Amino acid sequence: MSLMMQALEKAGILVEALPYIKQFYGKTIVLKYGGHAMKDQELKQAMMTDIVLMKYVGINPVLVHGGGPEINLLLERLGINSSFIQGLRVTDRETMEVVEMVLVGKVNKEIVSLINRHGGRAVGFSGKDGNLIEAQKKILVPLNGEEEMTYELGYVGEVARINPEIIQTVVDKGYIPVVAPIGVGLDGESYNINADYVAGAMAAALKADKLILLTDVEGIYGQYGDDTTLLSSIQLEEIPSLIHQGVITGGMIPKVQCCSQALQGGVVSAHIIDGRIPHSVLLEIFTDQGVGTMVSR
Amino acid sequence: MSLMMQALEKAGILVEALPYIKQFYGKTIVLKYGGHAMKDQELKQAMMTDIVLMKYVGINPVLVHGGGPEINLLLERLGINSSFIQGLRVTDRETMEVVEMVLVGKVNKEIVSLINRHGGRAVGFSGKDGNLIEAQKKILVPLNGEEEMTYELGYVGEVARINPEIIQTVVDKGYIPVVAPIGVGLDGESYNINADYVAGAMAAALKADKLILLTDVEGIYGQYGDDTTLLSSIQLEEIPSLIHQGVITGGMIPKVQCCSQALQGGVVSAHIIDGRIPHSVLLEIFTDQGVGTMVSR
Amino acid sequence: MSLMMQALEKAGILVEALPYIKQFYGKTIVLKYGGHAMKDQELKQAMMTDIVLMKYVGINPVLVHGGGPEINLLLERLGINSSFIQGLRVTDRETMEVVEMVLVGKVNKEIVSLINRHGGRAVGFSGKDGNLIEAQKKILVPLNGEEEMTYELGYVGEVARINPEIIQTVVDKGYIPVVAPIGVGLDGESYNINADYVAGAMAAALKADKLILLTDVEGIYGQYGDDTTLLSSIQLEEIPSLIHQGVITGGMIPKVQCCSQALQGGVVSAHIIDGRIPHSVLLEIFTDQGVGTMVSR
Amino acid sequence: MSLMMQALEKAGILVEALPYIKQFYGKTIVLKYGGHAMKDQELKQAMMTDIVLMKYVGINPVLVHGGGPEINLLLERLGINSSFIQGLRVTDRETMEVVEMVLVGKVNKEIVSLINRHGGRAVGFSGKDGNLIEAQKKILVPLNGEEEMTYELGYVGEVARINPEIIQTVVDKGYIPVVAPIGVGLDGESYNINADYVAGAMAAALKADKLILLTDVEGIYGQYGDDTTLLSSIQLEEIPSLIHQGVITGGMIPKVQCCSQALQGGVVSAHIIDGRIPHSVLLEIFTDQGVGTMVSR
Amino acid sequence: MSLMMQALEKAGILVEALPYIKQFYGKTIVLKYGGHAMKDQELKQAMMTDIVLMKYVGINPVLVHGGGPEINLLLERLGINSSFIQGLRVTDRETMEVVEMVLVGKVNKEIVSLINRHGGRAVGFSGKDGNLIEAQKKILVPLNGEEEMTYELGYVGEVARINPEIIQTVVDKGYIPVVAPIGVGLDGESYNINADYVAGAMAAALKADKLILLTDVEGIYGQYGDDTTLLSSIQLEEIPSLIHQGVITGGMIPKVQCCSQALQGGVVSAHIIDGRIPHSVLLEIFTDQGVGTMVSR
Amino acid sequence: MSLMMQALEKAGILVEALPYIKQFYGKTIVLKYGGHAMKDQELKQAMMTDIVLMKYVGINPVLVHGGGPEINLLLERLGINSSFIQGLRVTDRETMEVVEMVLVGKVNKEIVSLINRHGGRAVGFSGKDGNLIEAQKKILVPLNGEEEMTYELGYVGEVARINPEIIQTVVDKGYIPVVAPIGVGLDGESYNINADYVAGAMAAALKADKLILLTDVEGIYGQYGDDTTLLSSIQLEEIPSLIHQGVITGGMIPKVQCCSQALQGGVVSAHIIDGRIPHSVLLEIFTDQGVGTMVSR
Repeated sequence: MSLMMQALEKAGILVEALPYIKQFYGKTIVLKYGGHAMKDQELKQAMMTDIVLMKYVGINPVLVHGGGPEINLLLERLGINSSFIQGLRVTDRETMEVVEMVLVGKVNKEIVSLINRHGGRAVGFSGKDGNLIEAQKKILVPLNGEEEMTYELGYVGEVARINPEIIQTVVDKGYIPVVAPIGVGLDGESYNINADYVAGAMAAALKADKLILLTDVEGIYGQYGDDTTLLSSIQLEEIPSLIHQGVITGGMIPKVQCCSQALQGGVVSAHIIDGRIPHSVLLEIFTDQGVGTMVSR
Repeated sequence: MSLMMQALEKAGILVEALPYIKQFYGKTIVLKYGGHAMKDQELKQAMMTDIVLMKYVGINPVLVHGGGPEINLLLERLGINSSFIQGLRVTDRETMEVVEMVLVGKVNKEIVSLINRHGGRAVGFSGKDGNLIEAQKKILVPLNGEEEMTYELGYVGEVARINPEIIQTVVDKGYIPVVAPIGVGLDGESYNINADYVAGAMAAALKADKLILLTDVEGIYGQYGDDTTLLSSIQLEEIPSLIHQGVITGGMIPKVQCCSQALQGGVVSAHIIDGRIPHSVLLEIFTDQGVGTMVSR
Repeated sequence: MSLMMQALEKAGILVEALPYIKQFYGKTIVLKYGGHAMKDQELKQAMMTDIVLMKYVGINPVLVHGGGPEINLLLERLGINSSFIQGLRVTDRETMEVVEMVLVGKVNKEIVSLINRHGGRAVGFSGKDGNLIEAQKKILVPLNGEEEMTYELGYVGEVARINPEIIQTVVDKGYIPVVAPIGVGLDGESYNINADYVAGAMAAALKADKLILLTDVEGIYGQYGDDTTLLSSIQLEEIPSLIHQGVITGGMIPKVQCCSQALQGGVVSAHIIDGRIPHSVLLEIFTDQGVGTMVSR
Repeated sequence: MSLMMQALEKAGILVEALPYIKQFYGKTIVLKYGGHAMKDQELKQAMMTDIVLMKYVGINPVLVHGGGPEINLLLERLGINSSFIQGLRVTDRETMEVVEMVLVGKVNKEIVSLINRHGGRAVGFSGKDGNLIEAQKKILVPLNGEEEMTYELGYVGEVARINPEIIQTVVDKGYIPVVAPIGVGLDGESYNINADYVAGAMAAALKADKLILLTDVEGIYGQYGDDTTLLSSIQLEEIPSLIHQGVITGGMIPKVQCCSQALQGGVVSAHIIDGRIPHSVLLEIFTDQGVGTMVSR
Repeated sequence: MSLMMQALEKAGILVEALPYIKQFYGKTIVLKYGGHAMKDQELKQAMMTDIVLMKYVGINPVLVHGGGPEINLLLERLGINSSFIQGLRVTDRETMEVVEMVLVGKVNKEIVSLINRHGGRAVGFSGKDGNLIEAQKKILVPLNGEEEMTYELGYVGEVARINPEIIQTVVDKGYIPVVAPIGVGLDGESYNINADYVAGAMAAALKADKLILLTDVEGIYGQYGDDTTLLSSIQLEEIPSLIHQGVITGGMIPKVQCCSQALQGGVVSAHIIDGRIPHSVLLEIFTDQGVGTMVSR
Repeated sequence: MSLMMQALEKAGILVEALPYIKQFYGKTIVLKYGGHAMKDQELKQAMMTDIVLMKYVGINPVLVHGGGPEINLLLERLGINSSFIQGLRVTDRETMEVVEMVLVGKVNKEIVSLINRHGGRAVGFSGKDGNLIEAQKKILVPLNGEEEMTYELGYVGEVARINPEIIQTVVDKGYIPVVAPIGVGLDGESYNINADYVAGAMAAALKADKLILLTDVEGIYGQYGDDTTLLSSIQLEEIPSLIHQGVITGGMIPKVQCCSQALQGGVVSAHIIDGRIPHSVLLEIFTDQGVGTMVSR
């Protein structure tokens, strides 16, 4: 293919993107960034480029990130053992300190720096900055057969309230906010909150147009384990019966709940997409078919 | 190629555009639109899409258009004959009225309407609106052997001054200005001005980043008639000697002069590109090699 | 009368104008400009002065103009014949092109240029600019005894919607907008719309204080043909019975309907005045008795 | 003359005012108001109307007033005798208190209230408000043959500095400022300052376009006592020789000095006009010939 | 105590003020200034400092002042006798003129000048400035046994309406407004209004946080004459019964009514405090216990 | 002392603070926070109160903090040993990661949270946020007798450039910025920078009024070790000779250099004060004598 033909093809593809650019111009998109897309070097670079591109074509992206493996590494090096209840890490003060240092002092700043090097202007926040994320202690309901006394999770929190002013302040000046999912209690203590939930609550507080949760699966399957049964779209009201039928199970349940809360808070659509595909966020935004599963009203 | 592979390729191309989007973000680009690109239906649609895309990725395009064939058609239907001096149409009041009606009442509004239908928000202007283009009568210097008495060109004008306030007013509100090259004299009379010159002066008055002249040739050739000798870039100071050597000749001379004036007025680069290639403007802006010939300081 | 006495008298008249200046300070007045006042050179100059004066004493005038005779002249020269149904010109595409060229490319720009020369800062618009006037095809209801098949009027339109943003944008910057009554359909086609209706709809869309329709009669007469029976004021709710009684007839009926629609859209008063009197607009605004017929709620 | 003819004549006069309205649009005019024009009821009403009219046609008038007779009346009633040196009242603290009460508490507020009742929005200030007028003690140079010891004038001051922020603040919100010529010393004491001088300094500080001093004479005469020799215009540089020749004498000298200072401070023209003519300010602004004597550079 | 120890103690006290500074940051406090605090030199200086301090720590103070003794002095010197009905001075035009001159031309400007010398930026107003205080004639209801004919009070007024725009204009620019309690009738006449009532109405019109009335008593006593029974706080709804029981009597009744009106107009709390204590306003604002009696809802 | 007497004394102290409040109103003060004042619980609380108080009285404080002991603790727990050259820790990538996690993820957020709990609105930044602190590798010059090869310090940096936009953005919205002294290289790597130097460069970049360095000594002594010889003030030009004379030695030299750089960058005064005294910052700002040593031009 001649240089000119290649160039023409490129021009054609830019042109195809125009309707999507129009659609999301000036809109806010909250993105939960985590999993494989945060570990793989190539996926990471692709992600940062996508974020900066979104900003330049008039979209306001807001990132909320997780940080699992890095936390485990440091806990291990420090010889701190963790126990888990219902899949949640029991987080004492010492553990919490490690979680916060890793998320805020390492993971968050690495993302900020990467976006800056890709030509964006990022600013990182923890939930303490400007009191962004007010937290409350997470109260677990014991499952059948469990003993109640074991339910002290320590500094594991839930979002009590988002104060989005600091986010709005920096977005209005052209910055890309990057948020670590650390909340602050009324007691001034730090709380570790699931990043999906922070992203959902942030999307609702910012009246975002879209919430996108990056995961390590393709989306929601009609038949678990069968790739050909990916559901490209589900309705908010179908969720309870899909859970009841066992279509939505395990770790997908909390993700779907985040989507549900965001939609109820005014977000237009929520998306569970496959972070293992490079540029999956761009594909979600700039193609008709999208990727993964869309949850809408 | 699978759907997903195609999608990935598209994403890749969007990503490649990012450095160019960054570079021109918030910049003004003045575009002389005319020739083949204004007659061919497909090229026209491509052009409108390019303009709207530029606007959405943060560039401020300003169009100046010509309108040759439509003018001839109406003059012919009205039985008005024109004589020419040094290639310029002698323009009496009757002819001038036809020129203005066609350029302002037909060509300009068709472009405005097309941009609007492609999702932009265009507003058309003649040089009378807000006194945008102040004109003075063009004074021809007789060539050797010509009689002086024949040099009355009538309402053919030159740019005396651009008052860009009205352009800035609508650009600040997100509109795309489309300008017909009609100037207004101190006497309130209309003057027909070459669109290339209007574009050049407009670019200088708006402190534009780029001036792009769409033509029906590939650019400037080192050897006239030999396509393989296209000059991709020339310097402002080379122009006199290139004209002297006969490399730049004929109708290309005034175009190069427009570029020269724009650059002297503070424009960063001027481009003579081939309007017969679809999306040639996008290619110029969003690829490294560009298209046609760039004139720079 | 001595120079000083004359000067004192002048001062006295300026002072008499003060209450009216106060009353309309910062208000918008939409003016349908047409008929005799647009043909007679002296009336035209007087009108432009009035418009500029209004602007300087704090009123925001918006002009909508017609353009009848100029259109007929060009159609004739081009050998295009028109047929009429219920007084409306059947407008095929060729005719429409002529209408648009004359209104937008000639009449509109002449007015813009005249205002500028009188010291105002005018900007002309067609309904295509910024999608200002969205049109829909006019559907005629056959009168008794007429055949239905004859009712194709072509590109004759009605106002579907006014998008006044571009008007507001330029008014806020001190410009005087001048509007040609060309609408744009969803299909991107041009439609010829009666200027009175455009003025009425514009007045409603801009929440104007006054709508003034310049006509070639004194106003509405109690007894048709008897000048002494001029009605200086009628109420909105009297209109149906005045039409029923035959007091309002013929070409006055659509004018009264425009007034009625404007008033229902929030305009405070509408005026049908005699454009054959120089400065009739000033007289309407700056004297107690006004001129012509006022329609109010 | 018929009603319509009268109306037409009125319109014509409004139209004649347009060039002057254009000329002074957005400009500041400082007016020293005093003498006969402040005592005669009819002249007073005429003056207030003129002020409000100026405001409505886009001029920003700033008034500085005197207050002679009212001060004398109260001093007399209180049995306070005054001595004079070189025509200036020796002002002890008791006298100063009376001067301030009358100027600020009576004269100023009467003007403010009158303007408000004529439809303007006036706000009164003394030089203490916002530290508007900083004063310094006036130092008299003894004339030949006078004894030095007698030169204590008490609280008679000169303008040391104008702080125009408070004036600008209220003008920007559409108010008409009315200023009493009381200055404040560094010691916090009140000083009585000649209103002409305050007006001149105010005009310079506000970068006014015009300074107008209302007097009880027609202007400056070429031959003192001969009304036919009124000088309609003099140049700044002529002043010294006109004083030397005895053309400008007595109380006119300080007035001309004020004009001179204002012009040197950047004011375009200064006018000494006859306040005994109703609407003399309007005549000055809105007619070609003006009234009185203009001093310009 | 060493220098350092003293310094530390000072720091501690500043720190104690912080919660109160936070509480009133950006809030408006209307202060009726009168009585002893206006006569005693030391109290006066203390008051001015307090006002300036309030402004610097982010509070917006608005002063309304009285002026009793100064008025009497001048009336006496002019030989004007006053009669009183129900404790109100019968105010003929001559008396009114004296009242206005003293309040506006003397008392108001002295306060303005004092604040300026303490480092604030004050501007004085009468109710005529910007039509700030619209007044209506006060109508007295004859008490039992009184003859009706005697009830003509002359120019004694009540607040009909506050137009707070001019206050807001200067507060927004950092000035401290000082208001003399003179109202203006629809007839343009001046009216003398009780300063407490003006302060109460002003507080309501400005949506103030606090109204503070400086008096010459400690506050409201449970047992009249017994200092130990000072009520530190009463509720709005208790007022009628406290009056009925004779706890609130005499001159305290109108003061409590002002408080009541302010609270009903949206003011958060109203305070009757002892102006004889230096810095009593600061103590009210910056200490927990406050001073005097607080009226709240 | 009675309650009232105590209250009066408090009021007096507030009043004494007024001149200082005036002086620093709207000014920026950059504060290096570290040493004892950051370890002692009581000093910490006092500091936070001071910061919030400063903000409320109109000062804009910007904090730059250190974090020594916490870093050592974590390095120790992780078994990472450090070597030192010329007193600077050789910082390999592993060490740098620990430094950044502790400073940004722990120390910074604790300060932010503490300020928020004291009623301020703090936001924390690392030098990566908005590219706030651009760093370059620190190049050590070997001392006499040292081998060159040992001079690789790793990720120890110097300030190359401050980009203060993000600080200005949040200050304009009322936030208090808290900055961790981590810089970012052109390579995107993190660099550890001495907090004193960051504070000095920040003060210059923000055109601050004051730079305050909190230390664990009283200030600069004339005779080292003799408390009675504290220098309360030195001039910029005295510094070289004071170093030469051995008056300024050891760890005080870099601190004085920071002050010097800040002053050369336009800061008005720089202060080395004793952080071991509670509220020492308030004492510096709000008392005449100040505390510690002031460096000025």
